Amino acid sequence: MSEHGSAVEAFDAVDVIRAKRDGGEVAEDALRWMVDAYTREYVTDPQMAAFAMAVLLNGMTRDEVRVMTDAMIASGERMSFAGLGKPTVDKHSTGGVGDKITLPLAPLVASFGVAVPQLSGRGLGHTGGTLDKLESIPGWRAALSNDEMTAQLRDVGAVICAAGSGLAPADKRLYALRDVTGTVEAIPLIASSIMSKKIAEGTDSLVLDVKFGSGAFMRDLDRARELARTMVALGTDSGVSTTALLTDMNTPLGLAIGNANEVRESVEVLAGGGPADVVELTVALAREMLALAGQPDADVEAALRSGRAMDVWRAMIRAQDGDPDAALPTPNETHTVVAPSAGVVARMDALPFGVAAWRLGAGRARAQDPVLHAAGVDLHVKPGDAVTEGQALFTLLGQDGSRFERALAALEGAWEIGADAVARSPIVHERITA
Amino acid sequence: MSEHGSAVEAFDAVDVIRAKRDGGEVAEDALRWMVDAYTREYVTDPQMAAFAMAVLLNGMTRDEVRVMTDAMIASGERMSFAGLGKPTVDKHSTGGVGDKITLPLAPLVASFGVAVPQLSGRGLGHTGGTLDKLESIPGWRAALSNDEMTAQLRDVGAVICAAGSGLAPADKRLYALRDVTGTVEAIPLIASSIMSKKIAEGTDSLVLDVKFGSGAFMRDLDRARELARTMVALGTDSGVSTTALLTDMNTPLGLAIGNANEVRESVEVLAGGGPADVVELTVALAREMLALAGQPDADVEAALRSGRAMDVWRAMIRAQDGDPDAALPTPNETHTVVAPSAGVVARMDALPFGVAAWRLGAGRARAQDPVLHAAGVDLHVKPGDAVTEGQALFTLLGQDGSRFERALAALEGAWEIGADAVARSPIVHERITA
Repeated sequence: MSEHGSAVEAFDAVDVIRAKRDGGEVAEDALRWMVDAYTREYVTDPQMAAFAMAVLLNGMTRDEVRVMTDAMIASGERMSFAGLGKPTVDKHSTGGVGDKITLPLAPLVASFGVAVPQLSGRGLGHTGGTLDKLESIPGWRAALSNDEMTAQLRDVGAVICAAGSGLAPADKRLYALRDVTGTVEAIPLIASSIMSKKIAEGTDSLVLDVKFGSGAFMRDLDRARELARTMVALGTDSGVSTTALLTDMNTPLGLAIGNANEVRESVEVLAGGGPADVVELTVALAREMLALAGQPDADVEAALRSGRAMDVWRAMIRAQDGDPDAALPTPNETHTVVAPSAGVVARMDALPFGVAAWRLGAGRARAQDPVLHAAGVDLHVKPGDAVTEGQALFTLLGQDGSRFERALAALEGAWEIGADAVARSPIVHERITA
Repeated sequence: MSEHGSAVEAFDAVDVIRAKRDGGEVAEDALRWMVDAYTREYVTDPQMAAFAMAVLLNGMTRDEVRVMTDAMIASGERMSFAGLGKPTVDKHSTGGVGDKITLPLAPLVASFGVAVPQLSGRGLGHTGGTLDKLESIPGWRAALSNDEMTAQLRDVGAVICAAGSGLAPADKRLYALRDVTGTVEAIPLIASSIMSKKIAEGTDSLVLDVKFGSGAFMRDLDRARELARTMVALGTDSGVSTTALLTDMNTPLGLAIGNANEVRESVEVLAGGGPADVVELTVALAREMLALAGQPDADVEAALRSGRAMDVWRAMIRAQDGDPDAALPTPNETHTVVAPSAGVVARMDALPFGVAAWRLGAGRARAQDPVLHAAGVDLHVKPGDAVTEGQALFTLLGQDGSRFERALAALEGAWEIGADAVARSPIVHERITA
């Protein structure tokens, strides 16, 4: 009955939904209208929910993903760092357990004269948020104006701050809708959600850390690869040089899961130490970022050894009113689990460790909840390590002991000690380029 | 994050949506909860829209359709005619162009001592509504109380009236939602929408007229068959003896398309005359209904010839304050289209004729619009009829001539005159039983 519809609107939401529902490609102008009309609240939440489910089940073509993303970018402001006179490169991780890589990575890459504008978020559920971790540092503030951000990129080189509400506002509304309608898992929508903000941010290039495995949003390697390919294509089509690494998230990254303890571990890496897997992934991502910024041969390890990366870290924290020398919050109570027998750690499953840290208060269940910065889990061993009977495996960190029971319940069956040697698998599984 | 959800609700809408999205069967208690929680407005419209799209694309098992329907029935009141002491049998048509069959059918079947409780609706779009047609009759009222309905079934045997708002209220909300979210075409949802009201109405048995072809909701025969099979299975599973006829709706039914003109044609059939196709379908449906009511050998034609069916019609109209002898509204202006050349009518396409009648004012674009009872189209010939040059083919009926142009535009290419003889295809294509 379109002939009786409003003459003002160029398209009808039901026609757009039907096109995608019936497996067709939605015309560019119709798809742009759909996103724009949703931003204007002419297209309603139920209509967008039905559309999102049709996208989840029927997919989108590469062109559709590009148009959808471009329309989401057009819903808000676009930033530009063209005036800085140096290349900008950003990193995005799809999130994991113990993933603090942004903290050492941003100052490390910036130490090579590259600008790293790292707009980050807070955690929800079992994966932590970069801003939550940094807020463990006394005085540090996440909210910067665009002018402050630009000045810090010019003077320090690295900035990690909260994304303003002006970037891709359509995405915010759509993400909240997908969260309650079982449509979060649609790869074209995940890709356009992530990339719309990154492209609107105005970075020249982007490295994606797409995780797979038990602690990742995408458990399945094939789906993670599909997401990575979709995002690399989308970045390329939108003029942002984009590379992705597929990385293993079956085991927590590093030894610290939480907030303050992850900052501590990051500082260890910046000091030239830290767990091997965190160093491996930090270095791999830094190489990709620097290659996109025109420095394929940069000696990344040297910047860690020499303290150059640490200098940028300290300047970056200070620029956002944080004290890099201040003591970080410590837990009031701890509970350590020890090995019941001698052997080799066969498995430490990322998801339950993430859930345990979350239950201890390191993460939040609702967006408005606070986090406990000292809460989390410290691992003392990793898969492949030999242990003796009674040796400490991991320690729960809490504000008080009341949450230990539920955290321990999450960890039942989450780790295993066996008799045989275990081969450590590499963190970086695959590299996806345009 | 179900562990942080409300402890009061037994299920989580996102889990139910995901189960259907991922191609699984939703557990009975979860599906009942989903419908109940939607009725309570705990499950939101966006959630139900995403669920409906998942149902459209992934289907539902026979058990799921039964449970969904049962849950929609449980959302409202149930009627019962058990106290009447005679069998009740109802008919439902999926709607078509010129489909006035309910008007002669209900009194015809009731003339055999069977109760016919025919809850009907109004038209929207190109298919007319039974209540709109009957409202052409001066004084006739569609709204009856349950007591009035029961009394009329006892005293007259047939009643055609508006469905009260108490039957399956969840369906009303879901139907309005499907209408704006591109999910009308989901066969399990169509079936449960139709059948929830028929089962809640409390009829013993039910005959379905499922139409296919250009003027039908289901154009495709295979989809119409799937819908018929789904509804027959659903009726059977719910204790209502159900049979379906698949009937051809490529050509308008009878010669009258509109409201008052369709009442006139119905009265002709009750007087033993009327167009052959209308008589054929009325008789076929009456036989099915009477067979389900225990009279497989009823002489249906005799009841038309003898005037017994007409007596029930007159009593039925009078019982609802209508005057069966009153003059029906007539059009102020008419426009007749004649054959440009001699030949045989090869095709008269139901959909454009329905759209033309609608544009003339016989139907409504929005639920709140009035209809023009005298508006519509009168056909003078049907496919297979030989015509001479200049012979009248059809006449547009209007309140004034202002709408003729748009009606004629709808009819461009809608009919064809050829040189060859055309075989008339039977109306009833197939019979579907449990």
